[in-house]
Amino acid sequence: MTPAELRVMLDAVSEGRLEPELAHRQVLTAMREEPFEDLGFARVDHHRAIRQGFPEVILGLGKSPDQIATIAARIMARDGPLLITRADQLAWKRVQEMNPEAIYHELARAITVRREMPQGKGTVVIASAGTSDLPVAEEAAVTADLMGNEVERIYDIGVAGIHRLLSARDRLSSARVIVVVAGMEGALPSVVAGMVDVPVIAVPTSVGYGASFGGIAALLGMLNSCANGVSVVNIDNGFGAGCIASMINHLS
Amino acid sequence: MTPAELRVMLDAVSEGRLEPELAHRQVLTAMREEPFEDLGFARVDHHRAIRQGFPEVILGLGKSPDQIATIAARIMARDGPLLITRADQLAWKRVQEMNPEAIYHELARAITVRREMPQGKGTVVIASAGTSDLPVAEEAAVTADLMGNEVERIYDIGVAGIHRLLSARDRLSSARVIVVVAGMEGALPSVVAGMVDVPVIAVPTSVGYGASFGGIAALLGMLNSCANGVSVVNIDNGFGAGCIASMINHLS
Amino acid sequence: MTPAELRVMLDAVSEGRLEPELAHRQVLTAMREEPFEDLGFARVDHHRAIRQGFPEVILGLGKSPDQIATIAARIMARDGPLLITRADQLAWKRVQEMNPEAIYHELARAITVRREMPQGKGTVVIASAGTSDLPVAEEAAVTADLMGNEVERIYDIGVAGIHRLLSARDRLSSARVIVVVAGMEGALPSVVAGMVDVPVIAVPTSVGYGASFGGIAALLGMLNSCANGVSVVNIDNGFGAGCIASMINHLS
Amino acid sequence: MTPAELRVMLDAVSEGRLEPELAHRQVLTAMREEPFEDLGFARVDHHRAIRQGFPEVILGLGKSPDQIATIAARIMARDGPLLITRADQLAWKRVQEMNPEAIYHELARAITVRREMPQGKGTVVIASAGTSDLPVAEEAAVTADLMGNEVERIYDIGVAGIHRLLSARDRLSSARVIVVVAGMEGALPSVVAGMVDVPVIAVPTSVGYGASFGGIAALLGMLNSCANGVSVVNIDNGFGAGCIASMINHLS
Amino acid sequence: MTPAELRVMLDAVSEGRLEPELAHRQVLTAMREEPFEDLGFARVDHHRAIRQGFPEVILGLGKSPDQIATIAARIMARDGPLLITRADQLAWKRVQEMNPEAIYHELARAITVRREMPQGKGTVVIASAGTSDLPVAEEAAVTADLMGNEVERIYDIGVAGIHRLLSARDRLSSARVIVVVAGMEGALPSVVAGMVDVPVIAVPTSVGYGASFGGIAALLGMLNSCANGVSVVNIDNGFGAGCIASMINHLS
Amino acid sequence: MTPAELRVMLDAVSEGRLEPELAHRQVLTAMREEPFEDLGFARVDHHRAIRQGFPEVILGLGKSPDQIATIAARIMARDGPLLITRADQLAWKRVQEMNPEAIYHELARAITVRREMPQGKGTVVIASAGTSDLPVAEEAAVTADLMGNEVERIYDIGVAGIHRLLSARDRLSSARVIVVVAGMEGALPSVVAGMVDVPVIAVPTSVGYGASFGGIAALLGMLNSCANGVSVVNIDNGFGAGCIASMINHLS
Amino acid sequence: MTPAELRVMLDAVSEGRLEPELAHRQVLTAMREEPFEDLGFARVDHHRAIRQGFPEVILGLGKSPDQIATIAARIMARDGPLLITRADQLAWKRVQEMNPEAIYHELARAITVRREMPQGKGTVVIASAGTSDLPVAEEAAVTADLMGNEVERIYDIGVAGIHRLLSARDRLSSARVIVVVAGMEGALPSVVAGMVDVPVIAVPTSVGYGASFGGIAALLGMLNSCANGVSVVNIDNGFGAGCIASMINHLS
Amino acid sequence: MTPAELRVMLDAVSEGRLEPELAHRQVLTAMREEPFEDLGFARVDHHRAIRQGFPEVILGLGKSPDQIATIAARIMARDGPLLITRADQLAWKRVQEMNPEAIYHELARAITVRREMPQGKGTVVIASAGTSDLPVAEEAAVTADLMGNEVERIYDIGVAGIHRLLSARDRLSSARVIVVVAGMEGALPSVVAGMVDVPVIAVPTSVGYGASFGGIAALLGMLNSCANGVSVVNIDNGFGAGCIASMINHLS
Repeated sequence: MTPAELRVMLDAVSEGRLEPELAHRQVLTAMREEPFEDLGFARVDHHRAIRQGFPEVILGLGKSPDQIATIAARIMARDGPLLITRADQLAWKRVQEMNPEAIYHELARAITVRREMPQGKGTVVIASAGTSDLPVAEEAAVTADLMGNEVERIYDIGVAGIHRLLSARDRLSSARVIVVVAGMEGALPSVVAGMVDVPVIAVPTSVGYGASFGGIAALLGMLNSCANGVSVVNIDNGFGAGCIASMINHLS
Repeated sequence: MTPAELRVMLDAVSEGRLEPELAHRQVLTAMREEPFEDLGFARVDHHRAIRQGFPEVILGLGKSPDQIATIAARIMARDGPLLITRADQLAWKRVQEMNPEAIYHELARAITVRREMPQGKGTVVIASAGTSDLPVAEEAAVTADLMGNEVERIYDIGVAGIHRLLSARDRLSSARVIVVVAGMEGALPSVVAGMVDVPVIAVPTSVGYGASFGGIAALLGMLNSCANGVSVVNIDNGFGAGCIASMINHLS
Repeated sequence: MTPAELRVMLDAVSEGRLEPELAHRQVLTAMREEPFEDLGFARVDHHRAIRQGFPEVILGLGKSPDQIATIAARIMARDGPLLITRADQLAWKRVQEMNPEAIYHELARAITVRREMPQGKGTVVIASAGTSDLPVAEEAAVTADLMGNEVERIYDIGVAGIHRLLSARDRLSSARVIVVVAGMEGALPSVVAGMVDVPVIAVPTSVGYGASFGGIAALLGMLNSCANGVSVVNIDNGFGAGCIASMINHLS
Repeated sequence: MTPAELRVMLDAVSEGRLEPELAHRQVLTAMREEPFEDLGFARVDHHRAIRQGFPEVILGLGKSPDQIATIAARIMARDGPLLITRADQLAWKRVQEMNPEAIYHELARAITVRREMPQGKGTVVIASAGTSDLPVAEEAAVTADLMGNEVERIYDIGVAGIHRLLSARDRLSSARVIVVVAGMEGALPSVVAGMVDVPVIAVPTSVGYGASFGGIAALLGMLNSCANGVSVVNIDNGFGAGCIASMINHLS
Repeated sequence: MTPAELRVMLDAVSEGRLEPELAHRQVLTAMREEPFEDLGFARVDHHRAIRQGFPEVILGLGKSPDQIATIAARIMARDGPLLITRADQLAWKRVQEMNPEAIYHELARAITVRREMPQGKGTVVIASAGTSDLPVAEEAAVTADLMGNEVERIYDIGVAGIHRLLSARDRLSSARVIVVVAGMEGALPSVVAGMVDVPVIAVPTSVGYGASFGGIAALLGMLNSCANGVSVVNIDNGFGAGCIASMINHLS
Repeated sequence: MTPAELRVMLDAVSEGRLEPELAHRQVLTAMREEPFEDLGFARVDHHRAIRQGFPEVILGLGKSPDQIATIAARIMARDGPLLITRADQLAWKRVQEMNPEAIYHELARAITVRREMPQGKGTVVIASAGTSDLPVAEEAAVTADLMGNEVERIYDIGVAGIHRLLSARDRLSSARVIVVVAGMEGALPSVVAGMVDVPVIAVPTSVGYGASFGGIAALLGMLNSCANGVSVVNIDNGFGAGCIASMINHLS
Repeated sequence: MTPAELRVMLDAVSEGRLEPELAHRQVLTAMREEPFEDLGFARVDHHRAIRQGFPEVILGLGKSPDQIATIAARIMARDGPLLITRADQLAWKRVQEMNPEAIYHELARAITVRREMPQGKGTVVIASAGTSDLPVAEEAAVTADLMGNEVERIYDIGVAGIHRLLSARDRLSSARVIVVVAGMEGALPSVVAGMVDVPVIAVPTSVGYGASFGGIAALLGMLNSCANGVSVVNIDNGFGAGCIASMINHLS
Repeated sequence: MTPAELRVMLDAVSEGRLEPELAHRQVLTAMREEPFEDLGFARVDHHRAIRQGFPEVILGLGKSPDQIATIAARIMARDGPLLITRADQLAWKRVQEMNPEAIYHELARAITVRREMPQGKGTVVIASAGTSDLPVAEEAAVTADLMGNEVERIYDIGVAGIHRLLSARDRLSSARVIVVVAGMEGALPSVVAGMVDVPVIAVPTSVGYGASFGGIAALLGMLNSCANGVSVVNIDNGFGAGCIASMINHLS
């Protein structure tokens, strides 16, 4: 119930066209209405598309193919774009039965159904340090692409071979926002951020062994970046980075 | 060589007043010269204003008033705006002797000299959870303000009194980018990000005791945010957050 | 031997109806008696039903189906209610052979045999943040239900969609005690506790990835809650939370 | 605006006693009203007394005597009871100037102004393991006492001298809820909880050295308690424990 | 009340020499008697001398000189030996006023009053790795000495100069039990334990910087010792080690 | 070469019965001799039986059945007792082929070959807190038994049911040394040590979940024990505890 | 452009066969060209052989046999030596199909193709503490060997049997650089470094259990070494240590 | 006693020029002689100059000026060079009284007395990332200089301004060994090591705040370096790095 609708209703009450009893109930309902659908085990948040410009995204991790399919069905029923992250082929099969358009991105472990989206203003660059960071980088790339962004991938430009990074300077400079994915010492975002004047979203990955502690070393490195403009998301959270990059790229 | 000097030189070439050969050498030299000044203990990075839109910022932490003043002098010599973070009154006294315009922001522990800056497109909102988070929030606010942004402060809206937060919904929604500062459980960024569709920069603070572990609890909470659009900077890094917010707000 | 029984015995000695020798032995025995049954690998604590109002509960984790069944048999021999947590279908099969009433709660991974129990005074609400928190929430719900409580489940009301939580305000307010189960940033208990005036038992879950560190992020968030009335149990300890909630709900 | 008030107003509109224009404004206001006072650096939450049965409590840690006094003045202006934790004598002096009734509890480091409160149904026992745990235990005791509870203190009953603990068995058994404060290995709550059938709120303290890690050892010990009925609050959080104990003790 | 005393009493009841009423009270009292003195803030455990062969030891850390003196007075009133660890000169002054025999061990930061004690069977060797480990080593030595042991000190035999250690081989071999105190990498206990066949009590110290993490590195090293016979006490816990060594040395 | 043998040799040189050349070589050899057998991948330490009273023990963890069998063969070739810890049935099969006396202790996961050993003076008690701690407790028991000790097992006496522990008081008091095995909060050693005056070797186990962190909670609890006489070994290190207990029990 | 090609070009200029203008452009181009091959998922760094004396090494961990084979093919195409670490037999099969010379080192889990290399000046000693450290030690040995060094292995000389270590003193002293591999308490590098005057590269291994925390205990021990000359690489990083040792050994 | 001396002595015995009794004593003495001086609290290791090419270095941390002066006196008595790290001006005053040549290096917090030393073969470069890293870098520089090395300092070349680093490429390439000192994210060693083919010794510093955790972030970053040739020393251990660099530079 918008303020305007509230006014219309009160005028109706005042003019005798609406019973106060009925008006009472309508206002109370409006104040309590649930802008989501209750599936018992999950509440699909249909208002999110209005609040945040993209429907609820499904984190596949720890959900059964059945649960994933049920939630996906409700989202597709409203004809929105669909994004399921951390999903396997089984979940994809279930979704595909309902919607043959559903695509599985193997490297990114993501399921998508594409819809026309408003386009961001510039390019989102996804840079990564090593070959093993690719799944996370691809999750970011698929996310940003689906959300309506031109995406450019610049992979395997780790800091130990600085000439590889320098050779990508022009392409980095052309971005409106950059996602940098790196494991091990996580130094790439600092070097990249020192070369450009746009926001850098750093994604630590769990790649590495020993004292990398499943991505903690990279995470700490990124949080302590001596360069301006670096903010950080959770370890392996390619989706989160792609989503933030898209938000920034859609700022008018 | 500034862009202007480059233009002058190219005009001279075009008008036959300068040999292309000579110009060639000059350009190559300019590209290779060291764009920083060596003070022995520090190298002031004068190119940063060109690369990143704002001169080098001085982190006062662990530097003597003398070292701070020496670096500040070199930056002010180029007539740029000045920002010194984590500085005390002693350092301010030293800087003020050189430049009476220098202001000390007590709560933010920052020294500034203001210069005309290109203005960002929208408003940067700085939100904080509790009274004890103010120093960090103010550091972010002073930074964003100095870098040319309209700044709105919304303080003390912690999640344990959700009505305080809900009452600020309109002001939050009007932001182009939001910095959220919170200690203890660090839950505020998640709730804020769920209410808006603009990027949220989360700043954990070292406020708290016991199992807050100097801000680790808040940091982890923010990294694990279940809301979209949240990226994180280092504990107590108000400057970093203000700087990223400014970058985002200046995207054309 | 209660104080009253002791008095009766001493009177008997005084009146010559009881030999001091015999009395001696009886007192010593009373002081040493073992109110438990020794199975070699486990001592079943039969006094617990008297001390704590519910017989010993079996933590299935790390016990073989045989060990579980042996302990369960001794508990059922006294005709008490039975609760086995962290149990799989194999253990259930073994228990069911002995007692066909035994039920397996798949989501909660619990085996129960129900007995008439004194009922708690009010309602125990079990709230959870996300779909993946359900197994832990269900363990709490099954526990509280078996121990004689009216249980209300409110699931998937995470803080990133604050309207889902607000719509549950009435149901939360009607509780006598609330168990809040959440992973990731663990912010839900703070927000819930700020809305009610009854005790909130917070249960961090190991749901999440990366910097959630198997539930540590949620645990720290809950320990640092800025809201009054929140106490915390171990990560994934749904049973413990349900048990405390039942204790509180049974206070006369 | 309560539902009843809403109905009255709508009837007035219907009966022409109230202009719809005016009613419109009143409803909108009710939906937006801020139930707190904005002091700039803090928002005093006056609704908390209604929501949670006790006005907002001031955590003195990290606030200046001036800030504390300003917030305290607003709370006392509504004539509620006052509780300021982690406060020093300077803050007390400032508060006492405004209200001579203000008392300073040295061991507990707390300032209080007492008001008539509804009394809890039973006794809150505060037990502690060692002499060094007293400040935290006293913070819990002062809190519970001020909130309207009969408080019994049982101090220095650490597990290394189990007879001291056993001798307190009767007094422990008479409690309606028990707060157990312990540092070092934090074993006391487990032993106490095994002896009673009421909820135990465990408070780890930062007492100890070396591998006690400022209370982490005690915290972990309590979270892993093998006894039923133990929930845990933050390290040194005597206030939190006293507050939860009071909530439980006031359940009708 | 011993079993023998119980029998005597029951015979008296049987023979009419003792009223059952009186006997009743005596037995109940015996079952509840408190073998300690309650000072309000501390309960002095006088039974410990019987249970453990040495009266309660006072950990000075975090106690005021007054509290220390009060507890010390009660212990000295029973004429037992006195040991106060982690104490400063102020506390010593207070104790010395009551008992001029009280000695202050500056390096060990301990106060002692010596009494005749049963002597252990062999020699307790206290070995330390570096000069900075001396305070902890001395605390162990003073403790063992006071508890009735011949103590031999072998200091500064760190593993980086293995010849210093080898030259002490004979003296090490002559011990009945060895306390090894070491900071930094904590390797000394492993090497010593490999050279002897008696128990080695390892004490990590907080000596070091950086990745020594206040003794954690040494603690972990000792817990992971590849040599047989090494057990470990808390960081800097010289007293604990001296006490265990004395216990072992007093085994008949 | 013992000092006595050296003297004999020098006399022989002096009396012309031994060439200086030969003597030279003999002394040098003695100074360098290798008291172990080199298997390429392992050096069997045959001197350990002399130095430490028991031959080298094989830690099966991370060794192949072949490697285990090869090392075992060399130890058995000298007819010593054999102990292999953390071994599976496959390794046992390989050892049994060489020596049919080899026994596999399933719960303890240990392989043994028994030999006549000098007996310790008293009883080694192995106490454990819960059913899940049994494998570690049994490893300690098998070790102590094989090394020549009378072993008494007291299992499942966790602190949450303090009466179970009290009923074992007599048996605990009769020990010469006690090994206490406990997971979760690891409180049992403190309580036991407060009841006896003999050394307690505490063994944390990795039993538990969530914030038990694979035994860290129990380890920290034990290191911070407020009782005298507790020293600690590595998590799950039943062998180490049994070995130290045997050393102490063999002290004459 | 190789140094040789550069020389050819300069000669051509000198002899008038090439315009300096053209040469100028060629040199500039060469300095800017991308000295790596882009495989899409990886960029093979062919300049590394020039920069660092050995071609890029492939870390097999987390790469598929196909990815490994593709990268290996590009490296072998330039006829350089090949080193793939953390590889399994499947990857070896794929590489062997392309190049029958490829050898699989089972213990070291490495694939190599040997080429003539410049030899280091002295001997690289690889020492290890226990049998379980062998895979890491062998990775170091295979690496150093392939890179052109005389390698001597001294295995199983842990500090708990110090005589085994002392007997190796001569062989250790003859090294030009020593790699020391150790798990558990990680004490071996300290003892070795105290005996020699050449650099010691310490490699912690993840061998152990409980409080070894996957190698952290050993890592911390090595970082805190009290001996001079010890530097440390990542846990289990045998390759890194072998590579550094080779670099040092090749210093002229 | 060298092998040659042993032979001479045995010949003397054989030829009757030396009593076997006397020879016996001499050999035993030689086997036991203590190549160090016992000061009670410290054993000065005079053999170290022979074993490791430089006398024992004094770590001032945690030693009193008196203790430092006493140890320094014994070292200077042998006329060796003197190095005391982590020392303050008070200690310097005490040393200077004994030896006016003693110099205090304020930034490096080191005291030195210079002696003629054999010179290393090349240059040791000390590089640092930021101004706050200077004390540690200077400790490394002073150490290497005193030990006989040509030292070149390249300071303030952090990775966020990559052009500063690239401009130093030539000077880095001319080194025989490089020490890289960096705090915060610790990325500099990786980038430097990727540009050169000599060993890089990385020194993390405790510079930074928040999630730098006193140098842990930098330490982990360096341990996980993706570049070849990087080994690491303890946080802030400038001395250790300078010493290793000197060792490497002195390899013939």
